[in-house]
Amino acid sequence: MPKLNLQAIEQSNRTGYPSPFAEAMTRRWTRRLAPTAGLTDFGASHVLLPPGGISSQRHWHAEEDELVILLAGEAVLVEEGRETVLRAGDIAAFPKGVPNGPHLVNRSDADCVFVAVGRPAAGHCYYPDIDLHIHGASGRFTRKDGTPY
Amino acid sequence: MPKLNLQAIEQSNRTGYPSPFAEAMTRRWTRRLAPTAGLTDFGASHVLLPPGGISSQRHWHAEEDELVILLAGEAVLVEEGRETVLRAGDIAAFPKGVPNGPHLVNRSDADCVFVAVGRPAAGHCYYPDIDLHIHGASGRFTRKDGTPY
Repeated sequence: MPKLNLQAIEQSNRTGYPSPFAEAMTRRWTRRLAPTAGLTDFGASHVLLPPGGISSQRHWHAEEDELVILLAGEAVLVEEGRETVLRAGDIAAFPKGVPNGPHLVNRSDADCVFVAVGRPAAGHCYYPDIDLHIHGASGRFTRKDGTPY
Repeated sequence: MPKLNLQAIEQSNRTGYPSPFAEAMTRRWTRRLAPTAGLTDFGASHVLLPPGGISSQRHWHAEEDELVILLAGEAVLVEEGRETVLRAGDIAAFPKGVPNGPHLVNRSDADCVFVAVGRPAAGHCYYPDIDLHIHGASGRFTRKDGTPY
C-alpha cells in the first residue's frame, strides 16, 4: 500500500559516527523509508528530533544533493556563519559541492519532525567543525588526515 | 541560502497533457524546486491543490520512483480499487514498475499542500483510465496505440 505506516517502521537512534562524535546523536530518531517502501532511486528518512536533538554533525557532500522538508515543530538550520529558523512547511535544499556544512538543531521545547531526501551515499563528505571525513572511495569515516578510527 | 523562499518560486498550473486531459489540471498549482535549489540528483515539486484539484491523471511509472509528503490539508489517494485519505504528515511511496496507477484528489473544502519527489523522467508511463501514454524512448505523450496527439 503506498501510504506508509510510519508507526510500523523501526525508529532508531543509531549512528555510524565514531566516538566521540556519536554521543551527540542519541536524540535523533530516524525511520528509513526507502527500504520499507521499495524505493531505490533515492533515499528518504523520517526524523524526529526531541528538544536538544541535532540532525547530524555539520557537514556537506561533494556528490549528493539533499532536501529537507519540515513537518512539525521547528529547528534552527545552522550553516557557516548563519542561522535560520525552519518551521512546519519550510523546505531547505543542499546542492552537492557547496562547501557550507549545515545541520538542524532543535532548540525549542517541543519535538521537531522532518523528512530528508538524498541519493545513495557517494563521494566525499566534509565535516567543518570536527576531525571527521567520509572518504569517497571507501565510504568509511576517517580522520581528516585519512587515518581510520 | 538553503531555506527556499517558496513565495518567490513561480507557481504554475501548466500541464504537458494534451487536450482533453489537460482541462482537469487547471487547479494544480506547482512550484518546481530543483531548478531553483540547484538540485540535479532528483526533482521535487511543491504542489497546492485547491478543493476539486487533482495531482495528475492516474498513472504509474515503469522506471521512476515517486514519494509524496503531505504538508497541509487532506487528499484522497485513489489507486486501483482503493481509496485512502492522506493528512498532514502522511507519506506515500510509489516504487517504479508497480502497475497500480495512483493520484491525489482534493475532495475537501480547504487547500491541500504536498511535496512530490522523483528522479528525472525516464521510461514508459501508463495511464489506466485514459487513452494516454508516455513513450519511454521519446518522453512524449501518445495515445495507447502509439499515435501522436
